[in-house]
Amino acid sequence: MKKLINEPGNYVDEMLEGLVLANPELALSGQGKRVVQRSAPAGNGKVGIATGGGSGHLPLFCGYVGEGLLDSCAVGNVFEGPNMQSCLEAISAANAGAGVLCLYGNYGGDRMNFDMASEMAEAEGITVRTVLGIDDIASAAPEEADKRRGVAGIVFAYKAAGAKAAAGGSLDEVVEITERTIARTRTIGIGLSPCLIPGAAAPSFEIGETEVEMGIGIHGEAGIWRAAHRSADELVDEMLDRTLAEVPDGADGRVAVLVNGLGATPLDELFILYRRVSQRLTTRQIHIAVPLVGPFVTSMEMAGASISLCFVDDEILSLLRAPATCPFWRVG
Amino acid sequence: MKKLINEPGNYVDEMLEGLVLANPELALSGQGKRVVQRSAPAGNGKVGIATGGGSGHLPLFCGYVGEGLLDSCAVGNVFEGPNMQSCLEAISAANAGAGVLCLYGNYGGDRMNFDMASEMAEAEGITVRTVLGIDDIASAAPEEADKRRGVAGIVFAYKAAGAKAAAGGSLDEVVEITERTIARTRTIGIGLSPCLIPGAAAPSFEIGETEVEMGIGIHGEAGIWRAAHRSADELVDEMLDRTLAEVPDGADGRVAVLVNGLGATPLDELFILYRRVSQRLTTRQIHIAVPLVGPFVTSMEMAGASISLCFVDDEILSLLRAPATCPFWRVG
Repeated sequence: MKKLINEPGNYVDEMLEGLVLANPELALSGQGKRVVQRSAPAGNGKVGIATGGGSGHLPLFCGYVGEGLLDSCAVGNVFEGPNMQSCLEAISAANAGAGVLCLYGNYGGDRMNFDMASEMAEAEGITVRTVLGIDDIASAAPEEADKRRGVAGIVFAYKAAGAKAAAGGSLDEVVEITERTIARTRTIGIGLSPCLIPGAAAPSFEIGETEVEMGIGIHGEAGIWRAAHRSADELVDEMLDRTLAEVPDGADGRVAVLVNGLGATPLDELFILYRRVSQRLTTRQIHIAVPLVGPFVTSMEMAGASISLCFVDDEILSLLRAPATCPFWRVG
Repeated sequence: MKKLINEPGNYVDEMLEGLVLANPELALSGQGKRVVQRSAPAGNGKVGIATGGGSGHLPLFCGYVGEGLLDSCAVGNVFEGPNMQSCLEAISAANAGAGVLCLYGNYGGDRMNFDMASEMAEAEGITVRTVLGIDDIASAAPEEADKRRGVAGIVFAYKAAGAKAAAGGSLDEVVEITERTIARTRTIGIGLSPCLIPGAAAPSFEIGETEVEMGIGIHGEAGIWRAAHRSADELVDEMLDRTLAEVPDGADGRVAVLVNGLGATPLDELFILYRRVSQRLTTRQIHIAVPLVGPFVTSMEMAGASISLCFVDDEILSLLRAPATCPFWRVG
């Protein structure tokens, strides 16, 4: 498992430098140059949306800064939350006077630093609210949904929140639609191989040559079971069975679907998975209103995939379909 | 190296089924359902553009069917050219009365079948012209450029040809701009690991855990050298030195750049490569007019990357920037 890198310690900063060179609509800011923001901030009293998280997941997190999506992102080292200073800078960068939503995944380090930064931002007069991604159904029981990790499903929340804010929604309204989108989103992943953190002597975990892990997290967190590898259709069937066992209140038979690649798995295989998802949902008379297939939330070169379902309503669907532009995703 | 598949023999057909389910703007046609075409053909006497090639390279080839790009694609099995019947069906699907350009990579099997299909199409009254992608500078000497393989640089030719045809260009005009774009495009790749053809017992080739191969082809064809792995910057420097040793006539200091991922290499690393490309070209006073970074032409789960430079002129640049939409790429 070889990487195309220079000094491992420069991995994130060199990546960010390349990212903004290739995408001049993004800019680096902050003392440590660990905030990605729009080069032309939205301004105009729009509610700001800040995110943040560890590196190693591109397009997540900073790749979703753009029109109709996010305003800023605090960038941590690989698989490590951003520091408090970067979180505060990201909140400030997102602020245009109407308040800031901090929207990120439910991980302890990220929460600690964003919570401290939010207090400091409030002290500076910025109204800050927080919504956490908690879509990974493999990471805790339904009764403890607030302990679940945030994984690929956060992309739906980014899109809905970003569209609501772009349309002039108030902070309360943006928070409400974001919470509603997350409450209606379920993800489960499967992993086939580990990834390699730059500079690490060994891969992030070990898995046998003939094994697959159901419910793996995007940092290789342990899943529900590890067993002999099986067919794509069998894996999809179990993933959907687990997801559809948790249909949220208010679901009306329409879903947005994300078949997400974790890194090394080819696009071809994601479409093979999507084919089965489509067949099975059709059988259950569930209509796919928004189909997304591709690497939206990765774990570097991990082989594997995740399936996210967002049980949309009219408003969420309209927001998911509203125009948006970021370096890795264009809608409308 | 595990795959998310069902029966290996169904790999391509299931992939295509998923592709069109997720992207209703694409449709399958032909006896073997091995042609991807636009669901709503352009018509209106537009020059048609057909491509084709083996599977295993998504988004290439069929992923570039779309507005402002291609009209149809004949799809072969993994790493195998499409059969003659599919080539003929793709040409017919692309035909709207103004002639068809067949634009694909310079591989023997593809040429044989497209040549036969072109003769049959001509016999049916369709004017057919052919332009081959020959951008891989590692695959033959400059004096034998017509023997070079077509790799990631074909994306620039797709874009220029597609925009010219969409703008109402005649077949002669579309052929001319396509030939000019290809004559001004150079690519070189590096490979770190092999890929696995579905159903194969072993990976496509072997490479040592500490080795890198310079000049590797997108099917693992042997490159220029294989040696100890080195830093990203050193690799980029050699790739650019080799590419800039072949600056075409008429180059004016502006280039379109594609830093392309071959599959398993994370986006992060592609931006680390792009950073160095940008630095080095700036030093040489070459301006990057179009920066592209991402997996545009892959070799399944091969780790590695390629760098393509297209030495643009005013017309090519304008065509590269013209609006276009396909499932994996949006411009304008």
